[in-house]
Amino acid sequence: MTEKTPEYWMKLALDEAKRAESLDEIPIGAVLVDLETNTLITKAHNITQMTQNSLNHAEKVCLEHAMTLRGEKVLPNTALYTTLEPCPLCATAISFSRIKKCYFAAGDPKAGAVIHHTKLPTMHPHFFKTEYIQLKGSIEQDSIQLLKNFFQKQRKHS
Amino acid sequence: MTEKTPEYWMKLALDEAKRAESLDEIPIGAVLVDLETNTLITKAHNITQMTQNSLNHAEKVCLEHAMTLRGEKVLPNTALYTTLEPCPLCATAISFSRIKKCYFAAGDPKAGAVIHHTKLPTMHPHFFKTEYIQLKGSIEQDSIQLLKNFFQKQRKHS
Repeated sequence: MTEKTPEYWMKLALDEAKRAESLDEIPIGAVLVDLETNTLITKAHNITQMTQNSLNHAEKVCLEHAMTLRGEKVLPNTALYTTLEPCPLCATAISFSRIKKCYFAAGDPKAGAVIHHTKLPTMHPHFFKTEYIQLKGSIEQDSIQLLKNFFQKQRKHS
Repeated sequence: MTEKTPEYWMKLALDEAKRAESLDEIPIGAVLVDLETNTLITKAHNITQMTQNSLNHAEKVCLEHAMTLRGEKVLPNTALYTTLEPCPLCATAISFSRIKKCYFAAGDPKAGAVIHHTKLPTMHPHFFKTEYIQLKGSIEQDSIQLLKNFFQKQRKHS
């Protein structure tokens, strides 16, 4: 049996990102895990094109789906895995959902709001104290490469 | 015929906030207006309790509803009216939706992200250049009062 480590869950998030890519969506994936049982709650990818909703980032979709599944507006004792550093919308959604831990792979020097720019989780008052952990290494590189390829292909077609 | 001024639209947003209050939701309302025709696109109020979704702030619900109505992920040439200064989630949603103007009534010294704290629209890079306008005066006071009464009542019941 595969041990369900943070790398295991991030790999699942990366699979979601690849699914997004195959649907011509921005390749970003997210996975929500119950920290008590170390089991999957739900997973999602970016669906901004499919739904024509520019807010439908992987993390936001994943969190809202989990709220629907549980019938609860907060998701205590859970960990969110995302292939890209959350933007300000998703970082705030993570705080409102009271996510305990958030693992991310690639940093986002353009739109990230966790380790870049406005660094909301530390700079905005009253944010829930989510622990953010960057998983560097090969998964990080895979996520960066997936995004690079996608945007290169988009530029060729525009 | 009533002239449809910004105050007129904000009054409609305040009516939405009052509707929220009557449903035991946080009394915040939002209205989206087509700037070309000066007509209503849609309106909404906070529904975080009803939907058990902590992201369902008035502005976010209003914008997503308009995207669904129009089948488009951006809402150019529109103005959003909201009774409270947007939080970081809603300010980012406003940017992603490419809202031209955002009128707000009460400032939010606790969670606001437009004129308070991280001031996302000016401090976060690549935000869409939404023009933010605060409508001060009696509507602002009405919005503040509505929120004060709501939270006082909540404290009494807790």
